[in-house]
Amino acid sequence: MAQLQRIAITSLSSANALSQLQQNQILLTPQQQHYLNRVLRLQKGDRFIAMDGMGKCWLAQLEGEEAQILELLSVETELPISITLMIALPKGNGFDEVVRCCTELGVACIAPIMSDRTLLNPSPQKLERWRRIASEAAEQSERSFVPTILEPISFDAALSSFATQQKYICEGRGNYPHLKNCLHNQGEMSIVIATGPEGGWTEKEIDNAIKAGFQPVSLGRRILRAVTAPIVALSLISAACEV
Amino acid sequence: MAQLQRIAITSLSSANALSQLQQNQILLTPQQQHYLNRVLRLQKGDRFIAMDGMGKCWLAQLEGEEAQILELLSVETELPISITLMIALPKGNGFDEVVRCCTELGVACIAPIMSDRTLLNPSPQKLERWRRIASEAAEQSERSFVPTILEPISFDAALSSFATQQKYICEGRGNYPHLKNCLHNQGEMSIVIATGPEGGWTEKEIDNAIKAGFQPVSLGRRILRAVTAPIVALSLISAACEV
Repeated sequence: MAQLQRIAITSLSSANALSQLQQNQILLTPQQQHYLNRVLRLQKGDRFIAMDGMGKCWLAQLEGEEAQILELLSVETELPISITLMIALPKGNGFDEVVRCCTELGVACIAPIMSDRTLLNPSPQKLERWRRIASEAAEQSERSFVPTILEPISFDAALSSFATQQKYICEGRGNYPHLKNCLHNQGEMSIVIATGPEGGWTEKEIDNAIKAGFQPVSLGRRILRAVTAPIVALSLISAACEV
Repeated sequence: MAQLQRIAITSLSSANALSQLQQNQILLTPQQQHYLNRVLRLQKGDRFIAMDGMGKCWLAQLEGEEAQILELLSVETELPISITLMIALPKGNGFDEVVRCCTELGVACIAPIMSDRTLLNPSPQKLERWRRIASEAAEQSERSFVPTILEPISFDAALSSFATQQKYICEGRGNYPHLKNCLHNQGEMSIVIATGPEGGWTEKEIDNAIKAGFQPVSLGRRILRAVTAPIVALSLISAACEV
């Protein structure tokens, strides 16, 4: 199964955006170049998957500021949009279950986050283990692609890593609107959702996320564990965007 | 924390139903009497919680065909409707995680089911363990009530145990409509949702469920594990009915 990273592209021209597809090439935006080169660490000649958010996917090859389209892919079990989960690393082995469940639910990318209240500093062996779990779960759930598990990064670095208008941060305390009432399905091809550690995000983290364009949301009136929250969030987003 | 069972009652008169509330008494329907006496095994003098599906709850005491209302309860973290999860017992310790997560998500009652493909015949110690997990999870998630964990029953017995119009059975294979498109929020105060074992329900089980008034539904295009499906189903139902 292909272990390929994904980015969302604009395949149709509209009032707001030009199509990035030009014959067999994808013209990459500066944000996409940054994401592919710096966040995903792809190099010239590396392959990735371009998704247009409307159910079409292409296998593409990075060529500097452009990408060459190699073939149109047939996908039936993938979501039409790209979901990135930013998750503060939970205690113990809880992250294994998060990777497994969120892969089943269609996540495209998981970014493990070192937050103010994160206790764990995972070893490289852990990262290998998570990638193996993602690969197995993708196969068992009959997905076409394996989600990307990024190397753990700091919360502040993560806040500026993902370029999309639809960014949410889940917080159990405080009177934030329910995620279900905040998801808007219009034109966005990628979603970033952040879930916190045991004890929740710090106030400063929430403030910084809001400054970075994240909308704080609730997942309901009960307090969820750090390992339950991402599964619930993914369940709601997957269902909302499933065609 | 109160370890009390719950039933849904009609508190307002309408074109379709008379109010079951008469001064300080609840007039129980034959179905409710069956459920309280036979399924939940309550006896005269035992207490339970009556919910009207619109956010009101009362502590009540069983008195044969009626129940005496003892007090109006204040609840903020409970769902306005009563959700029963019928779950075919998964392999290994997977059920622990299901009990934990579904309690966090507001489930009212969990009915472990012996299906055609269920391998496990749980010991009484297991049942004790699940009830302890439910109690701990209810406390940690700041719920007002602890969900009821019923003794394991056969699939066919379970099909006729729960009297509600809104009954769903989740099935990964087959072209069933998505649960999100089937939930209707009008007037029902209780929902039953059934999720299957590893390998799914048998055709005969699905047929019998349909005959018993269950609607077969999908949870998305990917195949979910037996322990993931109930968490996803509860996430969607909780979010849909959360006020």
